[in-house]
Amino acid sequence: MKHLMLLSLVILTGLLRAQTLSSPNGNLQLTFSLTEEGEPMYSLQYKGKMVIADSKMGFTIMPATNLNAGFELKGSYKMEKDSVWQPVLGEYSQIRDHHNELLVKLQQWNTDYVLHIRFRLFDDGLGFRYEFPEQPHLRHFAIGNEHTAFKLMGNHKAFWLPADYDTNEFPTTISSLEAIPSLIDKVREEPLAAKSPTENVAVQTPLLLKTDDGLYLHFHEAALVDFPALMLNLNAQEHLLTAHLVPDKNGVRGYIQTGGMSPWRTIIVSDDARDIIASNLILNLNEPCKIEDTSWIKPIKYVGVWWEYFIGGGSTWAYKENSHHYHAANTQHVMKYIDFAATHGFDAVLVEGWNKGWEDNVAYYKEHIYSFTEPYPDFDVAKLRNYAASKGIKLIMHHETTSSVVDYERQLHQAFDFMKRNGYDAVKTGYVGPIIPRSEYHDSQWMVNHYNYVAATAASYKIMVNSHEAVRPTGLSRTYPNWIAQESARGTEFESFTGIAPNHTTILPFTRIKGGAMDYTPGIFEGDLSLYGDNKAKLSSTLVKQLALYVTMYSPLQMAADLPENYEKHLDAFQFIKDVATDWDDTYVLEAEPGAYLTIARKAKGKQEWYVGGITNEEARQAVIDFSFLPAGKNYTATIYADGKDADWRTQPKSYKISSKKIHHKTIIKQRLAPSGGVAISIKEDK
Amino acid sequence: MKHLMLLSLVILTGLLRAQTLSSPNGNLQLTFSLTEEGEPMYSLQYKGKMVIADSKMGFTIMPATNLNAGFELKGSYKMEKDSVWQPVLGEYSQIRDHHNELLVKLQQWNTDYVLHIRFRLFDDGLGFRYEFPEQPHLRHFAIGNEHTAFKLMGNHKAFWLPADYDTNEFPTTISSLEAIPSLIDKVREEPLAAKSPTENVAVQTPLLLKTDDGLYLHFHEAALVDFPALMLNLNAQEHLLTAHLVPDKNGVRGYIQTGGMSPWRTIIVSDDARDIIASNLILNLNEPCKIEDTSWIKPIKYVGVWWEYFIGGGSTWAYKENSHHYHAANTQHVMKYIDFAATHGFDAVLVEGWNKGWEDNVAYYKEHIYSFTEPYPDFDVAKLRNYAASKGIKLIMHHETTSSVVDYERQLHQAFDFMKRNGYDAVKTGYVGPIIPRSEYHDSQWMVNHYNYVAATAASYKIMVNSHEAVRPTGLSRTYPNWIAQESARGTEFESFTGIAPNHTTILPFTRIKGGAMDYTPGIFEGDLSLYGDNKAKLSSTLVKQLALYVTMYSPLQMAADLPENYEKHLDAFQFIKDVATDWDDTYVLEAEPGAYLTIARKAKGKQEWYVGGITNEEARQAVIDFSFLPAGKNYTATIYADGKDADWRTQPKSYKISSKKIHHKTIIKQRLAPSGGVAISIKEDK
Repeated sequence: MKHLMLLSLVILTGLLRAQTLSSPNGNLQLTFSLTEEGEPMYSLQYKGKMVIADSKMGFTIMPATNLNAGFELKGSYKMEKDSVWQPVLGEYSQIRDHHNELLVKLQQWNTDYVLHIRFRLFDDGLGFRYEFPEQPHLRHFAIGNEHTAFKLMGNHKAFWLPADYDTNEFPTTISSLEAIPSLIDKVREEPLAAKSPTENVAVQTPLLLKTDDGLYLHFHEAALVDFPALMLNLNAQEHLLTAHLVPDKNGVRGYIQTGGMSPWRTIIVSDDARDIIASNLILNLNEPCKIEDTSWIKPIKYVGVWWEYFIGGGSTWAYKENSHHYHAANTQHVMKYIDFAATHGFDAVLVEGWNKGWEDNVAYYKEHIYSFTEPYPDFDVAKLRNYAASKGIKLIMHHETTSSVVDYERQLHQAFDFMKRNGYDAVKTGYVGPIIPRSEYHDSQWMVNHYNYVAATAASYKIMVNSHEAVRPTGLSRTYPNWIAQESARGTEFESFTGIAPNHTTILPFTRIKGGAMDYTPGIFEGDLSLYGDNKAKLSSTLVKQLALYVTMYSPLQMAADLPENYEKHLDAFQFIKDVATDWDDTYVLEAEPGAYLTIARKAKGKQEWYVGGITNEEARQAVIDFSFLPAGKNYTATIYADGKDADWRTQPKSYKISSKKIHHKTIIKQRLAPSGGVAISIKEDK
Repeated sequence: MKHLMLLSLVILTGLLRAQTLSSPNGNLQLTFSLTEEGEPMYSLQYKGKMVIADSKMGFTIMPATNLNAGFELKGSYKMEKDSVWQPVLGEYSQIRDHHNELLVKLQQWNTDYVLHIRFRLFDDGLGFRYEFPEQPHLRHFAIGNEHTAFKLMGNHKAFWLPADYDTNEFPTTISSLEAIPSLIDKVREEPLAAKSPTENVAVQTPLLLKTDDGLYLHFHEAALVDFPALMLNLNAQEHLLTAHLVPDKNGVRGYIQTGGMSPWRTIIVSDDARDIIASNLILNLNEPCKIEDTSWIKPIKYVGVWWEYFIGGGSTWAYKENSHHYHAANTQHVMKYIDFAATHGFDAVLVEGWNKGWEDNVAYYKEHIYSFTEPYPDFDVAKLRNYAASKGIKLIMHHETTSSVVDYERQLHQAFDFMKRNGYDAVKTGYVGPIIPRSEYHDSQWMVNHYNYVAATAASYKIMVNSHEAVRPTGLSRTYPNWIAQESARGTEFESFTGIAPNHTTILPFTRIKGGAMDYTPGIFEGDLSLYGDNKAKLSSTLVKQLALYVTMYSPLQMAADLPENYEKHLDAFQFIKDVATDWDDTYVLEAEPGAYLTIARKAKGKQEWYVGGITNEEARQAVIDFSFLPAGKNYTATIYADGKDADWRTQPKSYKISSKKIHHKTIIKQRLAPSGGVAISIKEDK
């Protein structure tokens, strides 16, 4: 922490009810007030224009007590903080946390209950949280409802997922707020492994909005700890969003002990879409790293026994005697993957389907499904451990739980111990299907605590975690950098199911990835799955767009997801995947419009290497790549992986052209992107 | 197994629908039939009289499918078994299992689903269970309802507890079946730590009935494994009981995988009340011991830091700085208990309140309450381990979970490991308050599995378990004899709360204890709690009745629950507690009438010692003790602990008289018992 300055300390009387706070550059202004009835309210202005009108705050707690009115102000405290911190892995090697803070201390007339609200106003947005201090008359309570509102100023365009307690794998729908009620039922028909839709019209966070006058508003939460996930009810006619906490199946939305607090409710605001992607507000609102020695936390580029399960070619996770299916997680097959990984400079090989349980992995009805320490008979743990080590390759463990979560916790220590004894230092966890304990949803408080418990416990074993089907991230990778990535959104596997829309990857960096890295598993070169069997699915992008995703979809964990044989047919294009960095000193968002296009450049951590990824939706487009991010006075060689002239995701997805070009910091390249195409560029300083 | 004889194998056509089976001595006759609609039905006769008229069987499974009609008989198999087995600990050193078995194999017309029903008919009653064999069209399913019915022949007298998913600590009410609906709401007002009453009129098992013509019928279940507990709906006008399985909070009454089965539904029948107590039917229906080496499983007579928490004298479980309460689980205080235990020949000392968490042990709202490895600062684990060992005393571990069960499972291995490292080989577990996972009740399938999991896991550490507030036992101590006792009923602690009825302990051996040993914690000498402070409660028995309970309340785990100082005031009476055995070669029920009186004699295992306990309800009574159970031709000395002439539980509970008498196998003693009084006799063979 560089500076910590107490700007002012004002003890207010009950009469002086309104408090204002400005962001460091003055662009944002927050107003907090109490109504005559003692209701806490806030509003937010951006460059002098209201973006969130007076909006309610507070809770109903159980047994039925309001905690959203009848308050008087007991004190108000302002503080400025300006500091810089270094993430262990990230898009930036240094992150500045510069904000002004307002803490208001409220006490209720009739109950004496005390509630604190802490606001932090950054130049790129607002975070606020509720704090429940220890106090004489309140200790343990349950939340009936959170009343936090976001009163919007118009019928904004929304990039939304329908609210659901069990899944975040819907495609993003783009519509006006007012259109959502008429669209949501149809969107909810998407077939997903576990769905628990809200009864009312509600959407998920992260939620991105765009106003008619070009302002971008991003709603999410930061530091989701011991609290349920935040969804948002929509009153479409009034353009009003209100908090919808994910309940347990008894309807309780959080069990709280005083001394605790809510996550931060976050609003990122800018009139430049690029700022939304560049914002570090959510990370800044998370707690510093809790792991003392982080030397073992490293980025991972990997291949794995995975995509073959989805393409319809006959590979299966389950080992069964006398089955006509191919149990892919067998020793010989994994050794081939290890060979491929070693030949091409990857760090690791993921193997799914190695352990007992897949042969009868029925969700929800069955509690003890998997052993996390017993391999199938054709998976030789010791042999593979030694073989991988001899090739300098790590194996990535797979813990699919089929959402039988208590049984996973029962085995957790034994499972992690088994990993360490066998040379595994990263695990992919999975939560397919409805949850056991049967009171819980994927996004309820109990499960939130589970994911965090797994990350913290894994850290104590020096194990990295990549969680799939978990609650979407909220910046906790700052606190637990071993939680290296998550899926928690519609990922590449859907290319083999109901499909991915061409605009999908132009949206995710604005929404899902604001919470943290995504294990999107890009790199599919062969997009025509009918070549393998009965699967009629076709990839939603050109081959080059798949390359560009390694830059646009931030993650320190990146998979080359396709089969080795498909890479071997295109080793020139594969070179980009082999070269591209996974950890960064700096990131430059060059062009961005959610749902349309995105061009990002990044500097590899500790190297004079840069990588550029540009992508477009279903429309062909010209990317304008301004290389002014390169240090002046030097010359560079760019290797450009471009869509071929006839490239088109529908007809010629594998058409590409690789060229080399000398560039410097004043170079601007205009590059045509095919429909659902892209461009990928690797840049090295000339010696 | 002595004999295993296949009596007959009859493959029946769909036309031959009725099957009969007799008990070995012919007293009981079972009839199984299928109705025209393919509904399975059974009835039961005793000595030629119908006791259970035609009653339905089967299930509804989910998604909604009937599994109680549309069946045809595919096969029927009869078998006789006569064998003897040895319990590790018990009321008898040898138990005979003699029964005739009928297995019917049913298949449903429309679904092809297969259901087996296995009946075992003993001379003392019937057990039957449903088996769900592996089959092509059914694998995982959920139970919506079990339809098993018990159609009674009249308005019998019932000894009943109201059905409740979370507690079995109600007092027993005695009324006719038809009176239950008008009484049940009042009975349910009893204040208990967690209550989840059924919406309808229903009662718990074990349920004891007595017909107008003096027949006793006992309903319970045996081998409750991977199934919810059985309660019984009552249609009072029709004298009809039907199965009421404890649901989870989603309304599901069991998640089943084919290959599994239900527990046995048991009916013990006799016209002599003594036979109900003497019956081993429930144990016989349990699986043999699953623990290979049982040498470490031993009976335990113990004292402990326990009763002082209930009497209002200021002792508390919680350690708090600057508290005016006394944290009783402190090193010095425990050492005094160890001294007392060693002086008087006890095996062990229980200590409650030793570990962190009691200072804020809020149920249901808080998940992580206790550490099971971290003592309070004034409890010196190492010092006490060494001190106890030096005195030949074992410490008994205490794991109160406050029903935060997943958190207990998270810590289970560490907790057991901690125990073994510190010399503990028995644990008292506790489940006060509503359950986490919040989908569950104390008696739902998930919790049933939990209790069994703890017993099995403890066995792997060679740890004995005494579970409190768990589901009531169903004979599983045969399979896991390390599950040495349970509370699971209204125990002595209630003497300090709302009270114990004087007839209570004349009922429990007919009901609760039929499932297994009870840690009733008798031995209260000082029954006037107002001596300690504000507690106005008064013990419901004479001092001598407290002694008699060590014989009448079977348990290989017996506590002397009162404070050492109270025993020191009555060392002559205390001698009986010091002497009495806890494991037995044989048991003789001399007199018995539920709710009224009970006299039991037992022979100490491997010793020529006998102990007699006789008790009565609030009425004074004369016990007639026939010593014909003693081997003939020898002389014995009986030490008789009798109520004093003026003894009365209300006025002179501590009045007693100890005398000695020479007896032999033809002696009959008529002994007056005071109101809620008793008699206790120790007998040794003369040398």
